[in-house]
Amino acid sequence: MINIIPVKGMPDIQRGDNLGNLVVAKLKDQREQFQQGDITVVTQKIVSKAEGRVIALSGVNPSPFAAFIAKETGKDPRHVEIILRESRRIVKMKAGHLITETKHGFVCANSGVDASNVEKRKSSLTLLPVDPDGSANRIRKTIRKLTGKSIPVIITDTFGRAWRMGHVNFAVGVSGMKPVLDYRGTRDMYGHVLNVTEMAVADELAGAAELVMNKADGIPVALVRGYKFKAGRGVAKDLLYSEEVDLFR
Amino acid sequence: MINIIPVKGMPDIQRGDNLGNLVVAKLKDQREQFQQGDITVVTQKIVSKAEGRVIALSGVNPSPFAAFIAKETGKDPRHVEIILRESRRIVKMKAGHLITETKHGFVCANSGVDASNVEKRKSSLTLLPVDPDGSANRIRKTIRKLTGKSIPVIITDTFGRAWRMGHVNFAVGVSGMKPVLDYRGTRDMYGHVLNVTEMAVADELAGAAELVMNKADGIPVALVRGYKFKAGRGVAKDLLYSEEVDLFR
Repeated sequence: MINIIPVKGMPDIQRGDNLGNLVVAKLKDQREQFQQGDITVVTQKIVSKAEGRVIALSGVNPSPFAAFIAKETGKDPRHVEIILRESRRIVKMKAGHLITETKHGFVCANSGVDASNVEKRKSSLTLLPVDPDGSANRIRKTIRKLTGKSIPVIITDTFGRAWRMGHVNFAVGVSGMKPVLDYRGTRDMYGHVLNVTEMAVADELAGAAELVMNKADGIPVALVRGYKFKAGRGVAKDLLYSEEVDLFR
Repeated sequence: MINIIPVKGMPDIQRGDNLGNLVVAKLKDQREQFQQGDITVVTQKIVSKAEGRVIALSGVNPSPFAAFIAKETGKDPRHVEIILRESRRIVKMKAGHLITETKHGFVCANSGVDASNVEKRKSSLTLLPVDPDGSANRIRKTIRKLTGKSIPVIITDTFGRAWRMGHVNFAVGVSGMKPVLDYRGTRDMYGHVLNVTEMAVADELAGAAELVMNKADGIPVALVRGYKFKAGRGVAKDLLYSEEVDLFR
């Protein structure tokens, strides 16, 4: 049995806030605590805010290319400028959508640059953390210092997908566990060796946690309890194909 | 809090087995029962077996095109023949991979035609159910008849994704709930109207359930308890873009 436990009452996060401290404190408030084997899932939005990855539109000077794309897509030119600065490649521009590859290698709309849940006046944008694995690692270390337990951390963002409607939550930062489980070479229940089966469990954990978060509800952290993860060094890049083997790049 | 509860001890499924009956019985064996608000998640594999969607390779006569593709991809020509019969379109052929669109509209490797967990001799393949929503509906109705409770059913299969390593579990059949949650027009915690946010919750539920299933373990059914789904008519097609708005077709 797996439990997905929302961490309630997280405050509005400000630059410099220590997320590890806050999660431990808020868990205590709801008479809960970390158990060995738990996984912490944290939305990108509060990590970005804590790390100051928020940018005011007012100071942004769009390039001619950004201004051109803004016209094509119906977006604010300053928003497009920020998206381009976060991008390594434009994957698809169509019908007002701008699908890009971020400098980390994630393929998503607008390089994860987002206006929702930032502040009261809609004049700022959040960017993805510069190094989400590093962010996850720092949160994990804080929790370990406070509780003595090594709890893997997954940082998530919601992206769209090719061919399928709607967004789901994906892992963009990982620390303390293997994000991909390799079943190749193991045997199925009939004794056959499984051929292709690497499961992206960190993405499944991200999606599972989202089910208690609910976009608008302001629940940016959840624990997953009872999932037998594979401990060890793991990073979000493990979830991305290298360019050479990617069928869709 | 959400619980994901594995349904243990399901037998090796044979053609004609009644899955709804079996799930209710096996739950009882583990001193568990359906509660209002539960969701049943069932892997495609046992649905296909119960519905006789298993085909012996020995009787298959590959077409010249199937034989050609088999050579290109290093697959058994009879396997390719079956894949083509299940396909509406070949999306990508590269490096031994055959990504197709099934007649239902799912984009996945080999149209979901699979050799693992079928039978002792590796001479048969399973196909996706002809109408996975109908299959989900029949299971839901059986459970309702036996328990008096209306429990949504999601049928799942594991697919790869564009750009990201590894497989995750996806919803391929739905009954009794809305698979996509539409947050457009609702407000975020700062009072801004959210622009694009439709969440494919059925896919997140499918992935969450997979975390207790484990490919090789023979746990083909799980309950998700405590998730506030939106009841109503919903089908797996709600999770697919129409061809006109799909950026990647």
